[in-house]
Amino acid sequence: MGVVYRRGSEVRSVNEGDRVAVNAITPCFRCAACQQGATSHCGGLLGGWKLSHVKDGVFAEYFHVNDAEANLALVPDSISDEAACYTTDMMPTGLRGAELADVPLGGTVAIFGQGPVGLMATAGARLRGAGLIIVVDKRPNRLELAKAFGADITLDFTAVDPDEEIMEITRGVGVDAALEAIGSQMAMDSCLQTTRPGGTIVNMGIHSDGDTIDLPNDAWGRGMSDKTIRSVLCPGGKENMKRMMRLIETGRIDPTKLTTHTFRFDQLEKAFGMMSKKADNIIKPLILF
Amino acid sequence: MGVVYRRGSEVRSVNEGDRVAVNAITPCFRCAACQQGATSHCGGLLGGWKLSHVKDGVFAEYFHVNDAEANLALVPDSISDEAACYTTDMMPTGLRGAELADVPLGGTVAIFGQGPVGLMATAGARLRGAGLIIVVDKRPNRLELAKAFGADITLDFTAVDPDEEIMEITRGVGVDAALEAIGSQMAMDSCLQTTRPGGTIVNMGIHSDGDTIDLPNDAWGRGMSDKTIRSVLCPGGKENMKRMMRLIETGRIDPTKLTTHTFRFDQLEKAFGMMSKKADNIIKPLILF
Amino acid sequence: MGVVYRRGSEVRSVNEGDRVAVNAITPCFRCAACQQGATSHCGGLLGGWKLSHVKDGVFAEYFHVNDAEANLALVPDSISDEAACYTTDMMPTGLRGAELADVPLGGTVAIFGQGPVGLMATAGARLRGAGLIIVVDKRPNRLELAKAFGADITLDFTAVDPDEEIMEITRGVGVDAALEAIGSQMAMDSCLQTTRPGGTIVNMGIHSDGDTIDLPNDAWGRGMSDKTIRSVLCPGGKENMKRMMRLIETGRIDPTKLTTHTFRFDQLEKAFGMMSKKADNIIKPLILF
Amino acid sequence: MGVVYRRGSEVRSVNEGDRVAVNAITPCFRCAACQQGATSHCGGLLGGWKLSHVKDGVFAEYFHVNDAEANLALVPDSISDEAACYTTDMMPTGLRGAELADVPLGGTVAIFGQGPVGLMATAGARLRGAGLIIVVDKRPNRLELAKAFGADITLDFTAVDPDEEIMEITRGVGVDAALEAIGSQMAMDSCLQTTRPGGTIVNMGIHSDGDTIDLPNDAWGRGMSDKTIRSVLCPGGKENMKRMMRLIETGRIDPTKLTTHTFRFDQLEKAFGMMSKKADNIIKPLILF
Repeated sequence: MGVVYRRGSEVRSVNEGDRVAVNAITPCFRCAACQQGATSHCGGLLGGWKLSHVKDGVFAEYFHVNDAEANLALVPDSISDEAACYTTDMMPTGLRGAELADVPLGGTVAIFGQGPVGLMATAGARLRGAGLIIVVDKRPNRLELAKAFGADITLDFTAVDPDEEIMEITRGVGVDAALEAIGSQMAMDSCLQTTRPGGTIVNMGIHSDGDTIDLPNDAWGRGMSDKTIRSVLCPGGKENMKRMMRLIETGRIDPTKLTTHTFRFDQLEKAFGMMSKKADNIIKPLILF
Repeated sequence: MGVVYRRGSEVRSVNEGDRVAVNAITPCFRCAACQQGATSHCGGLLGGWKLSHVKDGVFAEYFHVNDAEANLALVPDSISDEAACYTTDMMPTGLRGAELADVPLGGTVAIFGQGPVGLMATAGARLRGAGLIIVVDKRPNRLELAKAFGADITLDFTAVDPDEEIMEITRGVGVDAALEAIGSQMAMDSCLQTTRPGGTIVNMGIHSDGDTIDLPNDAWGRGMSDKTIRSVLCPGGKENMKRMMRLIETGRIDPTKLTTHTFRFDQLEKAFGMMSKKADNIIKPLILF
Repeated sequence: MGVVYRRGSEVRSVNEGDRVAVNAITPCFRCAACQQGATSHCGGLLGGWKLSHVKDGVFAEYFHVNDAEANLALVPDSISDEAACYTTDMMPTGLRGAELADVPLGGTVAIFGQGPVGLMATAGARLRGAGLIIVVDKRPNRLELAKAFGADITLDFTAVDPDEEIMEITRGVGVDAALEAIGSQMAMDSCLQTTRPGGTIVNMGIHSDGDTIDLPNDAWGRGMSDKTIRSVLCPGGKENMKRMMRLIETGRIDPTKLTTHTFRFDQLEKAFGMMSKKADNIIKPLILF
Repeated sequence: MGVVYRRGSEVRSVNEGDRVAVNAITPCFRCAACQQGATSHCGGLLGGWKLSHVKDGVFAEYFHVNDAEANLALVPDSISDEAACYTTDMMPTGLRGAELADVPLGGTVAIFGQGPVGLMATAGARLRGAGLIIVVDKRPNRLELAKAFGADITLDFTAVDPDEEIMEITRGVGVDAALEAIGSQMAMDSCLQTTRPGGTIVNMGIHSDGDTIDLPNDAWGRGMSDKTIRSVLCPGGKENMKRMMRLIETGRIDPTKLTTHTFRFDQLEKAFGMMSKKADNIIKPLILF
């Protein structure tokens, strides 16, 4: 979803020929919202999300980057273009979700949905030191890839009831944190049902449909469960991307495992079409220029 | 809701004649849930809530206190029986809600509902250093009392649209935190609508009705608003009560302002009846033995 | 130490005639340090501290403000020039120290030194909901003013041993947090000695002298006390100043009580001279233009 | 340092024949200090540290465990006696240090000292998702083992100046967190020198000698660096041990790599003698019964 930037007038201390990456979220870091810490909501709700959202041109040879000083991240030589692309959206979103889950070393996590963000959350939970990671999806190739990214137990929700399984695995206690990586009501239900009292639910999925997202009242303890529900938009800025790149450089994570299909630039529409239908079990396409 | 304890076999280092207070929540502090920090859910969801919930006898001359070593709080001479009663449920719940709101010094807070817990949350928000406290209710005596506990602006929701008012007062930004102190769907809606991106919603109300509590999807940023929703049950234990009592001793708060009606012990049923109907604009009754 | 800004070419959305205030710390909010959260150390250690430190001109009719978009705070009509001045250094430093002390509602605090920053820390501890605030100084007018800002107990360290007093007041436990507002080795010693295990020490004083500041090993539990020692530089940026101004507007704090002496502009050197010697028990001078 | 418990009268819900492990720290979880969150300082500074400190008998066939309900951790069948021993002191101390370092995913860490606790901190930093881990020691076998536990860069402080190296590796910025795992003044100096403004220093070493531990004033920004210094004692309780055991069970860590020497029970004194002199490059001895 992010694209490697080429050249631009706002760039400072980046030289001709340098490779830089630009996040989908490009905050100004100066407005009231940014100074309050809500940089992804620069100027207003979702306001930091510009590229691939309200600004065109991410597939153009040149495109404009606002607040470039704060948002252009140099790509080290050791990192491929392909890997760098993942630091612009999928990786920071999934890893941020895992951080917000606030799981202690050795704690337990369940992740619902193993699309690109869910898989990155699995990698993030593993990186963050969760002691048991249970993931839920239905596609065999995603569940398999989840194991490669660090999942301990994979549950196919077409074969078993994931809530029951998770409660049994945790001996009736529930997990310390549950992550929603689909954007579905059903997954939110499961997150509330399977999180222990005092635990944390992190929503990373985009809930495109519906006027409301409903919390199951009993699982929420009728408002007294001490469960915390967080929601997250990808964090922006060059510093966060630098940390993502460091994790790639030092071999902690290889996000290119997400690439299941490769296309030429003139196949762009085909790639988008396959993504929207998740055709051929596509996880993430790579577009070559 | 809490009642002053008299004497008991489990008590240690409390002498005959001492006055002690017991919280509605009496955790063991040792089980898995307690060691995970979820002491109010000792042994399971809502499990720490014993007195006035699953254990009878709080109006008896003698009653059993589990884990008394951890749950009997000595009442200093300077604190009246009446004031001490409020440290057993209303005060710790409301103040804990205000703490979880995580508002920086000078930040903004809206509180929906000014019953006993809501009023204590107002006092808590003031104690915590909020710079602007907006409260919403419909009963004039509650709104008046809210001012006495520290509210800056009171909104009668039968006269104005509180969401619109709050957004106008905050110039379209929303408050840093919104607290739900009613247990109603409508108040939860308002909390989501009036909290800024990245802000915090704290639910303190008991949602007795309904299979679900619904989050308005747009205000929640379709799951990407970075808003955090917390839910809270009164924290238990003698140490927390000691802090509540200190606040009374040093004149930070006078919870006895909540007492609008006083009854003799033989009028107990009348008191409960009035509370369930909120008759005569009752806020909290005091039962004299 | 801060001064009201007049006009400047970098200003946006501030109109001719508006009053604005500028903090002593003016971060860019975009560099690596700023994006890591260390905005006061923009570009390097203490790097955000420009005005009154590395940039001249704060008493000139015009002066340059870097990153003005992020650092000019509009002063509301209801706030006097005098009060606004205090939002540029003393108030944000003292209040930030109180926030970092991380004291729960009803907790206990000791503050060593009641100069301008120490007094603002006292006000901050009161605003943050501490249940008992003990302050230490030797000047009677400072101790008296401390009471006005919220101190419960004042200790004159020339008359009593403050460490012994604090330990007796807290029945041998120590306070939840101790704040250093002098910049002296002796005060740091006292902070470590009087903080309970697991508590927090916040250093706000500038330790101008000495190659080292020494932690008393026993009080520090030989490195195992679980005590946390924080150090703090005034936080910058317009948002933080807006919160400070809100606290003044809504009557939470009146920083002008710090002003003990008033001077005309041509008495500037006299004012500085008195401050350096703390002559005539001066706490803070006001310079009138 | 911890020893496998056999049988005891206080044990509940542990059956004859079960293997249980007991932490060096056995808090009551009920006293004031415990309820304040300072469980390792149960009853007073270092008060939770009983076994191998103030209570004898950890090498006896039977020994007394206070507050056994909260402190006996069942050892799963999949975990060896040897591995379980490490969950009683070395592993929880080192991992807790890494948690308190509060490093974001991809952040940078330096660890001074690679004895048993330092090595476990290295493993902890890796588990917690640090993107770059630099360790400092002089013994080749320790530096080699550090790599096995996850260090990226090892520095022999007899060959290079570690502070200079760390500043160069981080391009003059310093690391996000530095951990002291020796208990020496020199290592504390290095921690302060190499941590970026706003970063965190965690002391895990026992500073047996000296009346003071001295902070280098310039590196501490003369008290304005926004650096946080934490100190840590091993956390106790069965829940924390359960998380340690989970990390072993799911293959995240193998603490038995720490065992360099094995002894029979009748060689106990020899083992202690070698440890005190670190003879034969011993890291940790295993005593077989």
